[in-house]
Amino acid sequence: MPDKRRPGPDVKMVLVLRGELRLTPGKAAVQAAHAAVLLAEEAGRRRLPWLDSWRATGAKKIALVVPTLEELEQLRRKAVARGIPAIVVEDAGLTEVPAGTKTCLGLGPAPSAELDAITGELDLL
Amino acid sequence: MPDKRRPGPDVKMVLVLRGELRLTPGKAAVQAAHAAVLLAEEAGRRRLPWLDSWRATGAKKIALVVPTLEELEQLRRKAVARGIPAIVVEDAGLTEVPAGTKTCLGLGPAPSAELDAITGELDLL
Repeated sequence: MPDKRRPGPDVKMVLVLRGELRLTPGKAAVQAAHAAVLLAEEAGRRRLPWLDSWRATGAKKIALVVPTLEELEQLRRKAVARGIPAIVVEDAGLTEVPAGTKTCLGLGPAPSAELDAITGELDLL
Repeated sequence: MPDKRRPGPDVKMVLVLRGELRLTPGKAAVQAAHAAVLLAEEAGRRRLPWLDSWRATGAKKIALVVPTLEELEQLRRKAVARGIPAIVVEDAGLTEVPAGTKTCLGLGPAPSAELDAITGELDLL
């Protein structure tokens, strides 16, 4: 019998920060928040089928870390190739990093299995 | 002469985490992201006048910390009294904290001066 509390597939967002930037926890939180808002807006505009499932199952999110910008870009390309919504946050550069620094890759909402296939090896932030 | 790059008032979101919970940076980032998505959705639903200014000026956000749940609740009440949009994130409790734990207060988008009047004394996350 299906569990009515969790309709549809297991769907989440993955927020990937660049470890090499050594952001403070607050700065990392702001970058992740920025990515999540952009992804939710984009999913709404494109009426992506995963948005409702994501909301209905608690809007699950996880924050991970990649060591370098190169790996962040590779991950973005892998996501795009799989049809996973992907956005890169560039910081305005008012505080910890120069303006235009790519700080965070936001992925999803998308099925967890799809996301785990490309992010499953990354460490938690 | 007005600066065309910054239309309208200076508007931001404030994301307030509970320091006593000693969340990991990743967990804190996820709570802040959850608050930001809820605030943006709510502002869109209510067609709040500050949403467009907030987006047009880079969707500014800042992450702060309160020592205790009591202070988080006091801050929420002060925000509501001033007409500032306020939401409290309760964690699903799958990892670091028990289910239902209030982890984060999200405020805004609202004019920075309004927010600073009630959060100006708080430390950065």
